[in-house]
Amino acid sequence: MRRTLTSHLPEATPGSPVLLQGWVHRRRPLARVTFLVVRDRTGLAQVVLPAGAEVPPEETPIEVTGTATANTQAPGGVEVTDATVIALAEPAETPAVELWRPTLETGLPTLLDHAATTWRHPMQRAKWELAAASLRGFRDTLDAQGFTEVQSPKLVEQATESGANVFEVDYFGRPAFLAQSPQFFKQQLVGIFERVYEVGPVFRAEPHDTVRHLAEYVSLDVELGFVEDHHPVMACLRDVVAGMVEAVRVRAEDAVVRLGIELPEVLPEIPVIHFRDALEIAGAPADERDLSPGHERALGEWAKAEHGSDFLLVDGYPTAHRAFYSHPDPADPHWSRSFDLIFRGVELVSGAQRLHRYGDYVRTLEERGYPYAPYASYVEAFKRGIPPHGGFAIGLERWIGRLVEAPNIREVTLFPRDLHRLAP
Amino acid sequence: MRRTLTSHLPEATPGSPVLLQGWVHRRRPLARVTFLVVRDRTGLAQVVLPAGAEVPPEETPIEVTGTATANTQAPGGVEVTDATVIALAEPAETPAVELWRPTLETGLPTLLDHAATTWRHPMQRAKWELAAASLRGFRDTLDAQGFTEVQSPKLVEQATESGANVFEVDYFGRPAFLAQSPQFFKQQLVGIFERVYEVGPVFRAEPHDTVRHLAEYVSLDVELGFVEDHHPVMACLRDVVAGMVEAVRVRAEDAVVRLGIELPEVLPEIPVIHFRDALEIAGAPADERDLSPGHERALGEWAKAEHGSDFLLVDGYPTAHRAFYSHPDPADPHWSRSFDLIFRGVELVSGAQRLHRYGDYVRTLEERGYPYAPYASYVEAFKRGIPPHGGFAIGLERWIGRLVEAPNIREVTLFPRDLHRLAP
Repeated sequence: MRRTLTSHLPEATPGSPVLLQGWVHRRRPLARVTFLVVRDRTGLAQVVLPAGAEVPPEETPIEVTGTATANTQAPGGVEVTDATVIALAEPAETPAVELWRPTLETGLPTLLDHAATTWRHPMQRAKWELAAASLRGFRDTLDAQGFTEVQSPKLVEQATESGANVFEVDYFGRPAFLAQSPQFFKQQLVGIFERVYEVGPVFRAEPHDTVRHLAEYVSLDVELGFVEDHHPVMACLRDVVAGMVEAVRVRAEDAVVRLGIELPEVLPEIPVIHFRDALEIAGAPADERDLSPGHERALGEWAKAEHGSDFLLVDGYPTAHRAFYSHPDPADPHWSRSFDLIFRGVELVSGAQRLHRYGDYVRTLEERGYPYAPYASYVEAFKRGIPPHGGFAIGLERWIGRLVEAPNIREVTLFPRDLHRLAP
Repeated sequence: MRRTLTSHLPEATPGSPVLLQGWVHRRRPLARVTFLVVRDRTGLAQVVLPAGAEVPPEETPIEVTGTATANTQAPGGVEVTDATVIALAEPAETPAVELWRPTLETGLPTLLDHAATTWRHPMQRAKWELAAASLRGFRDTLDAQGFTEVQSPKLVEQATESGANVFEVDYFGRPAFLAQSPQFFKQQLVGIFERVYEVGPVFRAEPHDTVRHLAEYVSLDVELGFVEDHHPVMACLRDVVAGMVEAVRVRAEDAVVRLGIELPEVLPEIPVIHFRDALEIAGAPADERDLSPGHERALGEWAKAEHGSDFLLVDGYPTAHRAFYSHPDPADPHWSRSFDLIFRGVELVSGAQRLHRYGDYVRTLEERGYPYAPYASYVEAFKRGIPPHGGFAIGLERWIGRLVEAPNIREVTLFPRDLHRLAP
């Protein structure tokens, strides 16, 4: 007999035989009947058994054969009666949390210590259904715009951006490092493919224990060539975010309902303000070098009130305080052609037009007092014809965290890695 | 003016103004005229300039404005005349190879040392166009079958499968390792999502210098729950490979033509033979523990001759010589429910039904004399209700390597990592 997913049980012809597969979500032995709730990846179904029926403990994988029977009291209006239950593994140990409760009121350390079990809860699992749909939207948008998906190495000879916060690896007896981003590779790959994207892990030996940082996270990297300035890059980012939201709406509809979240609307043009004006709106001194989390919150509120937008682009950050490969504004090189995307008051994305001339790299390294040697192979790539280009990176966990309003990024990471946590 | 991609130039109305962006692919100064061939991500276009015209050197990014003009001699029947050429960066240095030649007759070390330039060649670039399309087909197939895309950590506390060939990382002052595969995670994630896949880097401190091995490669991992044995896993693999081939055919058609390769046909059912029979067909002694590369070649030829198939599944490998989590055949536990997929005479995929009962894991570790402690967290996950499941892993580079018949896997890896090579 073919398996019926619990989400399709309501469509089963009453009286027809059905086969369910899933987990014992809950057993409820009553005086005259025993209810068994079966959970699979698509939802829950109710199975009716005689009073006193032996049912394996919660979380045991089972197979149920029985008869689809209409019952207005059952979820979806159909339950399974005359059922036979077969365990597909040993009886499960009692989990650390009661997964059958509508929500989990458990502390984060317990959730993370038992992640492979606690994330089974339908409200928890939903977060990665959003993540998977988001990735789908990300790639669909870029594939449609002529981008090529690439994979760059994570083992590198030199720290990507600076010597700090980098993990060292014993590479056949010599030192190597884990890439902090695919930045240097994606810029060089513009020379081959013009437009590239990569979804992959990045590594930061982040010595601070904050709710916003992880030692390993998933970065959605984009880089495109033949841009005049950073505006086409911001336009691409707008399309990507719109594609991600739309994919979540269409492909993870059920997870959105389960979580009870409201999806943001992405306007045809995301409002853009210059860093100078952003400081003023946030009530910050005009000589601040960057926006603090407090400023970002204020700007998020401003964008919502002023433009009805969950998103705000801030461009023109001071050149001296952005990554050295950021392109200055030729009209006033104090400011850069870089930008951040603020989503509901939190920085979600950083991007910029990059330098593309070898001479500019050499000058910038000099001005900043950076040594040439560690950057030589990267910088010399710009001798071989890289067009004007720019790009951005979205942190997947940060995106989902903001979407579900998780107070701690670890809540939206399957198996987080940080200063203290290296397992499970 | 909007950019015209070179591939769309043949559709431009003769006499209309056009804007091309790309690289100087070749300059050909003749007595009465100078030809400039422009390369972009979609192809080549011919630009006609006056004799003696100054044209930046090969590989300089440029912008060309001019008039679309019909010329049966030009590629695609349309060239650009009355052209103005603007360099978009400094004049490019002469590349290590002459990229304008129809094919590159350059040794592999040179190609790899200058990868960011040499892979610009249209025949070289094509290989990663195939890879990107393959990934698209992989994900499309699995998304349509209810799989969830996941990302598991690459920094792990214990070596994944055995202590050998693992890279050690300094993780905030204590040792960590780079994951050799997402195996342990994907099995546990079956408990959450039932069906998962992951595309990501895996790391093997492979001390041998062979044409088949890399220290870092891209693994396409799949795992699915509620299987009766390994046959549904092999059926899923068949669909995935068919989806990859179809996506290459549709989305990378131009790259297939450029490379002049023949795509394999994936039969509705890939032929399956038992390991015992495979040994006999390959002319190997009946007590061999595994298939050698020579045996695989012989089996590939046999599958082509006997079944007209580029693919052959071999199942039932001896349990004792497969990974400890492989499920034995209950009818005769000497043989396992594991399989390899041979593609044109080379092993491309390994897979199996896995053990899913805690007791079976404990017994197997004991029988093999493996210590319990390093596997404790993984093995104890099976106390918490993991259904019968199985999966497989495809090496992306090996897939593309076989598709284009590359003698060395490094030829289909953007920036390979091996015993000797950690850059570029």
